[in-house]
Amino acid sequence: MFSNDILLRTLRGEAVERPPVWLMRQAGRILPQYRQLRNSLTGFKELATRPELAAEATLQPVDALGVDAAIIFSDILVIPEAMGLTYEMEEKKGPFFPKTIENEADVRSLAEGETAAGRLGYVYESLRLTKKALHGRVPLIGFSGAPWTLLAYMVEGGGSKTFSKAKKFLYTQPQTAHLLLEKITSTVIAYLNQKISAGADVVQVFDSWAGILSPAQYREFSLPYLRRICNEVTTAPKIIFAKDGWFALEEIARLDCQALGLDWTVEPAQGRSWAGPQKVLQGNLDPCVLYAPTSVIRQKTLQMLADFKGKHIANLGHGVYPDTPLDHIKYFVETVQGFSYGGR
Amino acid sequence: MFSNDILLRTLRGEAVERPPVWLMRQAGRILPQYRQLRNSLTGFKELATRPELAAEATLQPVDALGVDAAIIFSDILVIPEAMGLTYEMEEKKGPFFPKTIENEADVRSLAEGETAAGRLGYVYESLRLTKKALHGRVPLIGFSGAPWTLLAYMVEGGGSKTFSKAKKFLYTQPQTAHLLLEKITSTVIAYLNQKISAGADVVQVFDSWAGILSPAQYREFSLPYLRRICNEVTTAPKIIFAKDGWFALEEIARLDCQALGLDWTVEPAQGRSWAGPQKVLQGNLDPCVLYAPTSVIRQKTLQMLADFKGKHIANLGHGVYPDTPLDHIKYFVETVQGFSYGGR
Repeated sequence: MFSNDILLRTLRGEAVERPPVWLMRQAGRILPQYRQLRNSLTGFKELATRPELAAEATLQPVDALGVDAAIIFSDILVIPEAMGLTYEMEEKKGPFFPKTIENEADVRSLAEGETAAGRLGYVYESLRLTKKALHGRVPLIGFSGAPWTLLAYMVEGGGSKTFSKAKKFLYTQPQTAHLLLEKITSTVIAYLNQKISAGADVVQVFDSWAGILSPAQYREFSLPYLRRICNEVTTAPKIIFAKDGWFALEEIARLDCQALGLDWTVEPAQGRSWAGPQKVLQGNLDPCVLYAPTSVIRQKTLQMLADFKGKHIANLGHGVYPDTPLDHIKYFVETVQGFSYGGR
Repeated sequence: MFSNDILLRTLRGEAVERPPVWLMRQAGRILPQYRQLRNSLTGFKELATRPELAAEATLQPVDALGVDAAIIFSDILVIPEAMGLTYEMEEKKGPFFPKTIENEADVRSLAEGETAAGRLGYVYESLRLTKKALHGRVPLIGFSGAPWTLLAYMVEGGGSKTFSKAKKFLYTQPQTAHLLLEKITSTVIAYLNQKISAGADVVQVFDSWAGILSPAQYREFSLPYLRRICNEVTTAPKIIFAKDGWFALEEIARLDCQALGLDWTVEPAQGRSWAGPQKVLQGNLDPCVLYAPTSVIRQKTLQMLADFKGKHIANLGHGVYPDTPLDHIKYFVETVQGFSYGGR
């Protein structure tokens, strides 16, 4: 039982009084209490791997912003790590893998499925602690990287403008790539199902590097694995967010999921036309709108809500940028929560 | 008079025997003779600003690859520099502006139009030298950055994943942004017209950061300036390439230009449907295909040519990556040049 279940009602396709609202990366540097917590530690990974601290970071935006959902504080790269490929998080530089995947032997050496997912007990414990502390205030979102996006990091070794090493891997070793994607997928499925068991009410899959692939590559190397995840994670509503993946939205919309995330390049009417009438759409305000004066934030937010019309979860089109003024973020949340579909 | 004018005939809308082919960034690190030339100098800017060397770099791929066009060796950031904002090119890090544009006074202090473009005599001299040395072998392409893309660098100060500083500028100081865009536009127009006078047979405008904007921002801060360029540069065919700007293609196609560049996320049939029947389309093989074995390069290239059907300039969907095997690039060029529309 939730005191605020507007996200879940929206995902069930019920008529709601207004769109629910939360922000990707709401648990993070936008909050002074997060920066304080983070600065007291040795690094990002300490925060991610200590359940009581991850739970604290997860709860902070619920308290500070009054958003309609919590999203567990974690990282998509816990999956490669659980499979046997450790990563480091470098301040201001992002993730870095000392060893990368280069060939079939590397792939064969990785753990997968329940075995790999079983190593992430600290994440499930974070969910349990958060769930208890939330006390039904709002639903809790669990998440995972999509298989292609995780492969991209595991082969490239870190972030990249082009991910040309990862794409080269797809073009030169397609069978090995599929083998790796299978292993990642079985791990993601076990991981998301355990997250749901530990308290996640909703799950979101981030295909952050969708836009790096050609449509043909996306069809071959990403979609089939998203499909398998959607078919085998069945006990919570699913949101798929393929950043810059406009060219695949029509196909993603045919998967067994409840909602699609949109980035800010997809106008609401276009997104609806690609997604069809049934899916809930999530997004998609340009994060940079939150740098603007509040009058502009109000106008752009209300315009977005009007354009989506309904079956909509208000959010940004990407994670909130760390230097966004906190009062502007609050203003965005309040603007959505003050809106009403009532007129219709 | 040209011994090979297939690019110009294609841009005039004539029926041609096969698509012309060239590669974005063909004058550059893919060629050993370029790397040798480059290593003998103090830096990239010496190469770009010494006309006899820039001409040499321009001619190298015509000799080595047999492409159907030369593109002048230069950089889009010569425009900000001519306006009064100098930049440095840092090895492996890209361009860097020690001083950036922050407010209206900064914009007012910049030169523009003929005055600014008049400072780029070394570029026009490179074109004259190249033109003479080409001796009509193939047409010569001149290029410029699009006003929005140039503003992005001038405000951000260098490359960026999000260009959030530049976008913040658009949201918080829209009038100053328009003032800057006007000044950049008048400079680009004078620059392109002088390039044509100096020998450019075709011009291409690169809107490299189109995909960073929302459709609404693109309509306000990029399209009107591209329109002005198209209306005021009238003596050579124009190619507009808005990277990741799929959402604006239908509107760009209404401008007075002959061709649209497509990145690899836009499938040929989709591009044709957005562009309408008249425009020539340029692109759009994924640059990473050139890492694949030649059998794959052949299959993907022929598929692309078949999908575009005609009114097409074969190219990649982005600049060729520096570590691409040279024999694969040659194989791509040969595959296009061995193709024939004859069957139709």
